[in-house]
Amino acid sequence: MIGIGVIGYGYWGPNLVRNFAEAQGARVVSVCDSRAERLAPVSKRYPGVKTTTSADEVLNDPAVDAVIIATPVATHHALVKQALQNNRHVLVTKPLTDSVVDAQELVELAAKKNRVLMLDHTFLYKGSVRTIKDMVQAGKLGNLYYYDSVRVNLGLFQHDVNVLWDLAVHDLSIMDYILGVQPREVSAAGIAHVAGRPEDIAYLTCFFEQNLIAHLHVNWLAPVKVRKTLIGGNKQMIVYDDLEPDAPLKIYDKGIDISSSEGIYQALVSYRTGDMWAPQVDMREALSAEAAHFVDCVTHNKRPLTDGESGVRMVRILEAANESLAAHGKPVKL
Amino acid sequence: MIGIGVIGYGYWGPNLVRNFAEAQGARVVSVCDSRAERLAPVSKRYPGVKTTTSADEVLNDPAVDAVIIATPVATHHALVKQALQNNRHVLVTKPLTDSVVDAQELVELAAKKNRVLMLDHTFLYKGSVRTIKDMVQAGKLGNLYYYDSVRVNLGLFQHDVNVLWDLAVHDLSIMDYILGVQPREVSAAGIAHVAGRPEDIAYLTCFFEQNLIAHLHVNWLAPVKVRKTLIGGNKQMIVYDDLEPDAPLKIYDKGIDISSSEGIYQALVSYRTGDMWAPQVDMREALSAEAAHFVDCVTHNKRPLTDGESGVRMVRILEAANESLAAHGKPVKL
Amino acid sequence: MIGIGVIGYGYWGPNLVRNFAEAQGARVVSVCDSRAERLAPVSKRYPGVKTTTSADEVLNDPAVDAVIIATPVATHHALVKQALQNNRHVLVTKPLTDSVVDAQELVELAAKKNRVLMLDHTFLYKGSVRTIKDMVQAGKLGNLYYYDSVRVNLGLFQHDVNVLWDLAVHDLSIMDYILGVQPREVSAAGIAHVAGRPEDIAYLTCFFEQNLIAHLHVNWLAPVKVRKTLIGGNKQMIVYDDLEPDAPLKIYDKGIDISSSEGIYQALVSYRTGDMWAPQVDMREALSAEAAHFVDCVTHNKRPLTDGESGVRMVRILEAANESLAAHGKPVKL
Amino acid sequence: MIGIGVIGYGYWGPNLVRNFAEAQGARVVSVCDSRAERLAPVSKRYPGVKTTTSADEVLNDPAVDAVIIATPVATHHALVKQALQNNRHVLVTKPLTDSVVDAQELVELAAKKNRVLMLDHTFLYKGSVRTIKDMVQAGKLGNLYYYDSVRVNLGLFQHDVNVLWDLAVHDLSIMDYILGVQPREVSAAGIAHVAGRPEDIAYLTCFFEQNLIAHLHVNWLAPVKVRKTLIGGNKQMIVYDDLEPDAPLKIYDKGIDISSSEGIYQALVSYRTGDMWAPQVDMREALSAEAAHFVDCVTHNKRPLTDGESGVRMVRILEAANESLAAHGKPVKL
Repeated sequence: MIGIGVIGYGYWGPNLVRNFAEAQGARVVSVCDSRAERLAPVSKRYPGVKTTTSADEVLNDPAVDAVIIATPVATHHALVKQALQNNRHVLVTKPLTDSVVDAQELVELAAKKNRVLMLDHTFLYKGSVRTIKDMVQAGKLGNLYYYDSVRVNLGLFQHDVNVLWDLAVHDLSIMDYILGVQPREVSAAGIAHVAGRPEDIAYLTCFFEQNLIAHLHVNWLAPVKVRKTLIGGNKQMIVYDDLEPDAPLKIYDKGIDISSSEGIYQALVSYRTGDMWAPQVDMREALSAEAAHFVDCVTHNKRPLTDGESGVRMVRILEAANESLAAHGKPVKL
Repeated sequence: MIGIGVIGYGYWGPNLVRNFAEAQGARVVSVCDSRAERLAPVSKRYPGVKTTTSADEVLNDPAVDAVIIATPVATHHALVKQALQNNRHVLVTKPLTDSVVDAQELVELAAKKNRVLMLDHTFLYKGSVRTIKDMVQAGKLGNLYYYDSVRVNLGLFQHDVNVLWDLAVHDLSIMDYILGVQPREVSAAGIAHVAGRPEDIAYLTCFFEQNLIAHLHVNWLAPVKVRKTLIGGNKQMIVYDDLEPDAPLKIYDKGIDISSSEGIYQALVSYRTGDMWAPQVDMREALSAEAAHFVDCVTHNKRPLTDGESGVRMVRILEAANESLAAHGKPVKL
Repeated sequence: MIGIGVIGYGYWGPNLVRNFAEAQGARVVSVCDSRAERLAPVSKRYPGVKTTTSADEVLNDPAVDAVIIATPVATHHALVKQALQNNRHVLVTKPLTDSVVDAQELVELAAKKNRVLMLDHTFLYKGSVRTIKDMVQAGKLGNLYYYDSVRVNLGLFQHDVNVLWDLAVHDLSIMDYILGVQPREVSAAGIAHVAGRPEDIAYLTCFFEQNLIAHLHVNWLAPVKVRKTLIGGNKQMIVYDDLEPDAPLKIYDKGIDISSSEGIYQALVSYRTGDMWAPQVDMREALSAEAAHFVDCVTHNKRPLTDGESGVRMVRILEAANESLAAHGKPVKL
Repeated sequence: MIGIGVIGYGYWGPNLVRNFAEAQGARVVSVCDSRAERLAPVSKRYPGVKTTTSADEVLNDPAVDAVIIATPVATHHALVKQALQNNRHVLVTKPLTDSVVDAQELVELAAKKNRVLMLDHTFLYKGSVRTIKDMVQAGKLGNLYYYDSVRVNLGLFQHDVNVLWDLAVHDLSIMDYILGVQPREVSAAGIAHVAGRPEDIAYLTCFFEQNLIAHLHVNWLAPVKVRKTLIGGNKQMIVYDDLEPDAPLKIYDKGIDISSSEGIYQALVSYRTGDMWAPQVDMREALSAEAAHFVDCVTHNKRPLTDGESGVRMVRILEAANESLAAHGKPVKL
C-alpha cells in the first residue's frame, strides 16, 4: 500500500485526492495547503487523512512514499527537487517547471535517485485521446496534414503564467503524444488585457518537418467553453470534442483527392463528403486511470507514459513560444 | 431600368444572376462565360437573357449600363479597367485585385469616370452582421478586446490565390466593417499540401492600437464546415455563427470583471456566467439586399457601403499577410 | 415536352413552379391563383408563363397536359376530379382529399381515364429517406420496434384542417414508405387554443401487428423548429433529422441485447453504447427529383411512387385519428 | 447531528450517500444492501460507515434518526412503513409505492407519527426547474398552453415497473410542481418488446381544465439520450434541456398572436420569431440541495417541498396511466 501525500488543495487538488482515495494499492496519508481554510472539507470528507499547512511535514513524513504536487508552477522546481532528494516518487501538475534548465535538472535528479517522476498530463489518460493515438499509429489518417485545437472559456487568471502555459500545455501534451514528432520552429501571438497580468489570449503555430502544421488557440476571455481539435490527414480526418459526451470523436471518411476536383467542387455546395463515423469511446474518468498508472509505475518501478522527459518537451516549446509572443510572431527555432 | 451584364458564370455567378433577375429597377441583359457549356442552363432558366463567351460583347453592349464581374481574381484588373473605361458601373467579386497598386488604379479610374465601383463583400449585407455593427457602434460590448473567426470546410482549390485571398477576405471585410479601424501589423502562418498549389491552410493575426487583437483561421481541408466568430469586449461578448439559423447571434452578458476574481473562479467550474441573449435577426438573403443597394447606388449615383476603397484595404492586408506567410509569421507592418 | 399548368401559388406553389421550370421534358404553361396580387412576381420571374385567376382557364387550356394542384385541401376533390375528367394528368399536394370516400373516387377516376394521379409527398424523394428505406429493406435494423417522429414549429394556422392533416401527413407518408405495413388501430390526442380553429397540437399513436408502435407529435405552437425521427430495431437504430445538414442520418450500432443486462446497465451511465455512423446522403432538393419522376411517369405512363393509393392510405389514418382525437384518445380500429 | 441510515446501494444509492456524507448537520451511520459485494466500496471510501446486508439492523439502530430508502418500488411500502413505525424520518426514492392505497397509508402514518416523509423527486431541487417555476408563477409565460417532455435513452430495464413508473415519474413531478394543477383525465399508449417484461416505451397524455394539455414520451430503447421539455404559453415559451449545460433554459419571446396572422406566416419561413434568452442557472448538484433540505426539515420539523402528498399524486396518475395503457389509449378519468 503506497502512502500518498498531496501538496496543494486548490482547484485541481480535490480531484487528485478523490481519485487516489479510491485507487487500489494506495492510500492518501496527508493533504497540505498553505491556506488553512482549504483543509476543513478534507477532514469532513476523509476522516482518516492528516491535514497540514506545512509542505515540509508532508515531504518528511515517513508514511509518505509518493508526493503529489498541485501548486502554482513557480513553486514546482523547489518542491519536486526536495521530494526527490527525500527519495519520494513524484506526480506533478503541468507544466513541470517554468524553465527548461530547471525541468532537465529534475529529470536528471529523478534518474539519479531512481524515483518515478510523472507529469499530470491528464488528457493522455482519456479514452478519446487513446483512440486517436491508435488510429494515427495504425495509419488510418494517412499522411498527417494539420493539428488544430481550440481551448477557450472564461477562465481563472493565473498570476504566474500566461494562458499558453496554463491551457496550451494540455493541447501540446496531446499533440506530442499523437504526432510523436517535435516541431522545429514556432510562431506565437497574443495579448494581455489586464495591466500587470500575463497574456490572456494567445495563438501558437508549430512548424514540423514535411508539410505538417499545428496551431493552438487558447483564450481566458471567451464567453463560451470550446474544446475542439481537428486532425487532418490525406485519408481521414478527425474532429475531437470532449464536450460532446455522446460522440467525442467524429472520424470523416474524407481526405483530399486532387484528381477528383469535381468531387471537391461538390464539397463546396454540400457540407462534407464521405461518411462520418463516431466510435464508442471509454468515457471513464481519466484521472482514475492516471492514478492507477502512477501507482503501477511506483510499485513496479516503471517509466510512466507522461514521464519527466515529456514535461521537458512541453516546457521547451512554451519557452520558445514566449520569445515569439514578445516579438509579435517572429519565428523561433527549437 | 438598369441593364446588367454578367461576366463569369461559375460557382457564384448563378446566385448573382438570380438575385439581379428579381431586383427592382434592373434587368439582366446578358451573361458571359468562356466555357460555352456553362451557358445552356442560363437560356433554359432565363429565356430573355443573351448569352455569350465573349467578355467584349458584354463590355461593349449599349444595353449594358452596369457590369458584374465574377471571374478569377487574376482577371479582375483588366476587366474592371475596361468596363470603367467604357463608362460602365461595376460590381466585382472579392478580392478587388491581386495587388494594392492595381486596386488603387481602379479606384482612381472609377472616380475619374464618376462610375460606381462596388465590391461583392456579401456578408456586409447580412442582417446578422448589421446587428453586430449596431451593437458595437452603440458601445454595447464596451472596449473591444478581440475578434476571432474560423472559416473552414472542404473547399474548392483556387488555382490563382491562396486560402487567405479566397476565404479570409470575407472575414477581413466583416472585421473592417465592425471594428472600423485598421490593423498596424500582421503575422501569418500557413502551409500548402498540394505541389504547385497555393497555401490551403492559413492563420492570420492582426495587431491593432491599444490591446485589440484579431485572428482568422481559414482552411480548405477541414472535414466539417465551421463559420464561427467570437467578438469580445469588456462588457459583452458575441458568438456569431451563420450555420445556426435559429440563433446566428448569441450575446453573452459577460465581460471580464477584474475585481470579482471570485466570480471568475466560478466561471472555471460552470460553463459561462451571465445570461445569454439571441436577438431575432433578419434572415433574408444578403445578396438580394446587396443587389438592391447596387441598383440604388447606380441610379442615384451614391457611394456604396462596400466601395472600391474597402477593396483596397482588404488587398493591403492580404499583401502583407502573404509576405509574413512566406517568412513563417515574421511580423509585417502596414 | 409536357405542358404544365399550376393551380395555387401560395406558400408551396412557387417551389413547384421553380422546379418544373427547370425540369427536363416539361415547361410551365400557366400559373393560376385566385388572388391576382400573387401573380405579379410570376410574370417578373417567368416572362414566358401565362397567369390567370381562373382555374377553369388552366383546366381547359389545350397546351396543358398535366395540372399541379397546390390549393387548400377542401378544394382538392373538385379540382382533381375536373382535371381528370378533362384527361389531364395530376400532381396534387397532400392530403389528397378530406375524406376517404372522395379520395377513392379520384383513384378510380384516374384509373378509368388512364391518367397519372400523383401525390406531392415530397419527403419520399429525399436522399435521406431513400437511404433509410434501403437500410430497413436490407434488414440492417433487424426487427422494427418503434417509429417516433416530432415535427413542430411556430407554423401557419390552417383554416380548414387541423395540425395532423397539415403536418403529420408528412410523417405518415414517410412511415408508410419505410415500414411498408399499415397500422390496425390508432389513438390520438390534441387540443385547439384558438376559438373556432382546428387542433394546433396533436399526438398520434399507431398500433401495428407484432410489437411495433409508431408515434407522431405535431405542433403549430412550438418556439423552435424540430424535425426528428427515431427508428428503432433490435439490431440498429436510426436518428433522422433533416435540420442537421452535415449528418441528417445517424445510425447507431446498438439495438437491445437482453442477455447482456450488464451492457444495458453501462448504457445508463454512458450516453450510448456502440459506434455511431452517419452515411453521406444525397442532399439535392427533393422537389427536383419529384418533378423529374412526375414527368417520367406522365411520359412513359408509369405508376408513381407516391400514387393515388398512397394518398388514400394517408387519409384513412387521418380520418380515424380525427375520430379518436374527438374522444380523448379512444382507440379506433382501421 | 442527524444519523442517516441508507437502505439500497445500487445505481442511485452511491449518489445519496456521497451527498449526505458532505451535508452539514448530518452523518452517514450505516449503509445496507442485500448484495454483500456492493458494500466493499463503501468501506473503502467511507471508513467510518457501518455496512450490513440486513435492513432491520438499520431500521433498529438507535444511532439512525432518518432512513433513506433506495430500493425497488415493490419494497417501498413495507420498508417505509416499518421505518415510520420505528419513529424514523424517511426519504424514499420515487415512486412512493406501487399503489395509491399503500401510498396514502404511509402519508397518514407519517402524520400520526409526526415524522418527515420526503420523496426523492430530485429534479425539483435543480436550479433550472426552480427558475421555470418562478417564471410561470410570475406569469411570464401568460396562459399555459402545453407541457411536452421527452425522456429517452438506452436504459436499464426495471423488472418490477414499466417505463412510465421509472422515467415518466420524474417529468410528472416537475409538471406537478410547475403547473400546480392536477390533470382530470389521462390517455396512455405503450408497448413491451421483451417477453415477460413491462412496457419499455410509453406515451402519456394528460388533459387539464381549460385548454392545457401535457404529454410525456419515455423510452428505454432509444439510441440517444434526450431530455427535452417544451412549455408553451401565449406570452412566452420555454425549452428546457438539462443536457445543454451552457444553456439548459431557453426562453423565447414568442407566444401566439392570432391577429397578426402575417407574423405567423413569417414564422413558417424563418425558424422562429422573437428573441431568445438563456438565463444563467444555478448548476450546483440538485442532490446536495435536496440533502440539505431533508436535514433542515428533520431538524426543524418542517414539511418538505416533495412531501408524501406529492408522492401520492404521482402514483395516482401512474395508476390511471397503467389502466389506459392496457386499453390502447382509452381515456381514464382521475
